[in-house]
Amino acid sequence: MHPQRWGDPAAASDLPESARGLVELAFGLRDRPAVTGATPPAVALDDALLEGLRALVGAEHVLVDDETRTLRTRGKSTPDLLRARSGDLSDAPDAVVRPDGHVEVVAVLAWAAEHRVAVVPFGGGTCVTGGLAARRDGFAGLVSLDLVRMKRLLAVDDVSMSVTLQPGLRGPEAEALLAGHGLTLGHYPQSFDHASIGGFAATRSSGQSSAGYGRFDAMVVGLTAATPTGSLDLGSSPANAAGPDLRQLLLGSEGAFGVITSVTVRVRRAPAVTTYDGWRWPSFDAGSDAMRTLAQAGLLPTVIRLSDETETAINLADPTSIGGTDDPGCLMITGYEGTAEQVDARREAVSAVLTGLGGTALGEEPGRKWVQGRFDAPYLRDSLLDHGVLVETLETATFWSNRARLHDDVKEALQAALGEGSLVLCHVSHVYETGCSLYFTVAASQADDPLAQWQTAKAAASDAIIAAGATITHHHAIGTDHKPWFAQEIGEVGVRVLRAVKAELDPVGILNPGVLIP
Amino acid sequence: MHPQRWGDPAAASDLPESARGLVELAFGLRDRPAVTGATPPAVALDDALLEGLRALVGAEHVLVDDETRTLRTRGKSTPDLLRARSGDLSDAPDAVVRPDGHVEVVAVLAWAAEHRVAVVPFGGGTCVTGGLAARRDGFAGLVSLDLVRMKRLLAVDDVSMSVTLQPGLRGPEAEALLAGHGLTLGHYPQSFDHASIGGFAATRSSGQSSAGYGRFDAMVVGLTAATPTGSLDLGSSPANAAGPDLRQLLLGSEGAFGVITSVTVRVRRAPAVTTYDGWRWPSFDAGSDAMRTLAQAGLLPTVIRLSDETETAINLADPTSIGGTDDPGCLMITGYEGTAEQVDARREAVSAVLTGLGGTALGEEPGRKWVQGRFDAPYLRDSLLDHGVLVETLETATFWSNRARLHDDVKEALQAALGEGSLVLCHVSHVYETGCSLYFTVAASQADDPLAQWQTAKAAASDAIIAAGATITHHHAIGTDHKPWFAQEIGEVGVRVLRAVKAELDPVGILNPGVLIP
Repeated sequence: MHPQRWGDPAAASDLPESARGLVELAFGLRDRPAVTGATPPAVALDDALLEGLRALVGAEHVLVDDETRTLRTRGKSTPDLLRARSGDLSDAPDAVVRPDGHVEVVAVLAWAAEHRVAVVPFGGGTCVTGGLAARRDGFAGLVSLDLVRMKRLLAVDDVSMSVTLQPGLRGPEAEALLAGHGLTLGHYPQSFDHASIGGFAATRSSGQSSAGYGRFDAMVVGLTAATPTGSLDLGSSPANAAGPDLRQLLLGSEGAFGVITSVTVRVRRAPAVTTYDGWRWPSFDAGSDAMRTLAQAGLLPTVIRLSDETETAINLADPTSIGGTDDPGCLMITGYEGTAEQVDARREAVSAVLTGLGGTALGEEPGRKWVQGRFDAPYLRDSLLDHGVLVETLETATFWSNRARLHDDVKEALQAALGEGSLVLCHVSHVYETGCSLYFTVAASQADDPLAQWQTAKAAASDAIIAAGATITHHHAIGTDHKPWFAQEIGEVGVRVLRAVKAELDPVGILNPGVLIP
Repeated sequence: MHPQRWGDPAAASDLPESARGLVELAFGLRDRPAVTGATPPAVALDDALLEGLRALVGAEHVLVDDETRTLRTRGKSTPDLLRARSGDLSDAPDAVVRPDGHVEVVAVLAWAAEHRVAVVPFGGGTCVTGGLAARRDGFAGLVSLDLVRMKRLLAVDDVSMSVTLQPGLRGPEAEALLAGHGLTLGHYPQSFDHASIGGFAATRSSGQSSAGYGRFDAMVVGLTAATPTGSLDLGSSPANAAGPDLRQLLLGSEGAFGVITSVTVRVRRAPAVTTYDGWRWPSFDAGSDAMRTLAQAGLLPTVIRLSDETETAINLADPTSIGGTDDPGCLMITGYEGTAEQVDARREAVSAVLTGLGGTALGEEPGRKWVQGRFDAPYLRDSLLDHGVLVETLETATFWSNRARLHDDVKEALQAALGEGSLVLCHVSHVYETGCSLYFTVAASQADDPLAQWQTAKAAASDAIIAAGATITHHHAIGTDHKPWFAQEIGEVGVRVLRAVKAELDPVGILNPGVLIP
């Protein structure tokens, strides 16, 4: 992926003609082309250091050319893209290092600690919270530890229904390997096409099918990790009472404690049938309450998501979508996966509850449309950035009793910060018995300094989230962007605990410096 | 509870007449009465120190009389009971301190750190792994921090279906408070009658209805903890990606990192209907495979447990039980809770699967018998100890593909260590998609030194568990007894992580010294 844009260049396209009118009406259309031809800073590592790295992983796996270093610069947040679009490649690594396997990762970390070189573990590069822009000061240089060669399916245990995967596997690569055994992970975040198994683990990712398959951290039953001071091999059992669950300390550690070199995850049989339904709700409150009822009854579909009134209206404003009503209400998508028998039974039971609660069945078309476009929003963001529109997302989670307040407070904070004409959309895409996530999408006409414009709005939203007692992130992780609010969320003692673990595992502090830990 | 015996003296009874003949036949019957009249060592804390404590919690809540100190001596493992029966009260605390609320706990911990006094948090006192016998050397004395005054239901959120409980609530007390709101935790470990909410959290307890209600650590959405260096208040959301889940670092920390002063837990509606069925399986393998099928199909009852051939035969040998067959096979109990509609649907679906897999329905009687006696085994243990029989339990968990090996290896190790005539029973009582627990009960004729006899057998079983790659404990925690094997399970780096967290939160090391951390 180029640091200026999302994903596969072949999949990118300009703003669809159908949307152009609407966007122009809402925000105006101005060309804001990205600066081209920028090059990363000179390589800070001297030849002796590079020679040391080459001895560890092979000369062909230590890359210092401008193109490779450019491609490993930062992640995919709108601030990341805006910086790259302005020609700023100052966060480029000095070298991209590609170890093959746990032993080589251990060797690279020992080398880096010895020579005070910062190390940024790199999987799919889809981070949207600044987690791939580590601090360089105090270090001899910074290398991107690219896990691209670690793409093996290491073990399949189809009695226990678990598999062991290397961290460099992208979503589709892992699913393809599992499909050969009739298995699936069922983990489909929006970044699925590009994000990696290691990244899912290191950020405690959550996929669009979380209602059916669970969060990624709930799938993990074992893991190995390389740290600068030794290796961890955890996973004696599905669950136990052998002290605190240390797996949960590595999950979510964002490469700051160690590099996850394999994960053993629970899998399911690949579904025979997949079906989606659309539902209309008179309000976001009514639809949310229906989700809560299902979650608390233990009767969830595999996928369940609900757009608020604004997001529903915007989606329906696309002339190719369904619509044709003055008051579209709120759109819910439900999806079911499994055997035909399982799907039929669950769909019937869920549909009965939703109908009873005031939902109106819309048939299969809305779901089909959602599935088609489910991974495409980041491409649309690029097109909108090209045309002078600022687009970004943020997300949080809270308990059901706090959902309405959180929705209103965050929306208000964003709209106040971005001013008249800005759009704030929201949906619920992950539900639990006790609460749910809220995912906001923001669009506004770009100011002269869109980066500062967004940072002001993001800070206002983050303040509102913490003031409401909610989490600064449900599934995007901390990175560097969320650190000030993360510190408030876990408190001073929580921060000290993270620092103590960091100091023990990585005493020189080479791993992702400045990321995660406040 | 007296340190020599389990539970409520009024509920205790001698060996039932019906079992006496069988026990005599198997082990012989000899009187091994407990030594009476032993007294704890003199109080090591001087008056000035005690005066300091009294100023913090009130004079009436600092108890130093022999009876109170005796009642707070150790937990309820067979080794604990054997020590107390021999008159050994050397682990008695110098004082029992009863703070009321988070602020007083904080004050006591600060006082203890200042004066180098060891602190053992005390909830229900039912620990069976030596977690209530902290190390005294290097300390001015040792106090039992009794949470008995912290028994409030602090908050009820019946929209989010969560409640906040203080840690001193015993199982039945918590359920009684929740019943007033039509709610239940559904957490029923064998220690339910006496164990506390704080203990469930600090040890990552698992109850007999874990298939339906989940493990205790899975119920917790928030907690507060007091440490010697500050307080933690965690629980912004049901789940999130805000770094590692620090809740999971406090859960299972066995009072070594801090004192859990409240927990916010997910609750369910109190069930309208509860039903149990018995099933007969031709073998432990066949029954276990059926459990696996249900778990992997997402079709679990609320309760599911399966006795192996030996445990089934012993249970049926009780003349009041069902039986009347030469080959009883393996007994499974399934239980269902919920609305009548939920129970009927789940029971029908589960029963169809079990019948299809070769299970024979035994009707409701076996389940009724199990429910009646489900919390009574520890009383029977006391009677057997009185009569010269050694009885103890241990438990582990592993992945399904390793279940048969683990069962055979542990059984063989125990029988080899305890010699001819010993009995080793086993059941599965907690199942997951990827694996299950194994719970062993051992009975043998007591040697002259029954403590050494058991320690040899326990070490052999623990070695077999670790050699098989399983966990040293599925739901009894580490305490002091499991430490050597725990160190092997999490490895040297895992041990260092725990030590680093301990050093950060409790730099003087006053909290449960010698417990949990290898």
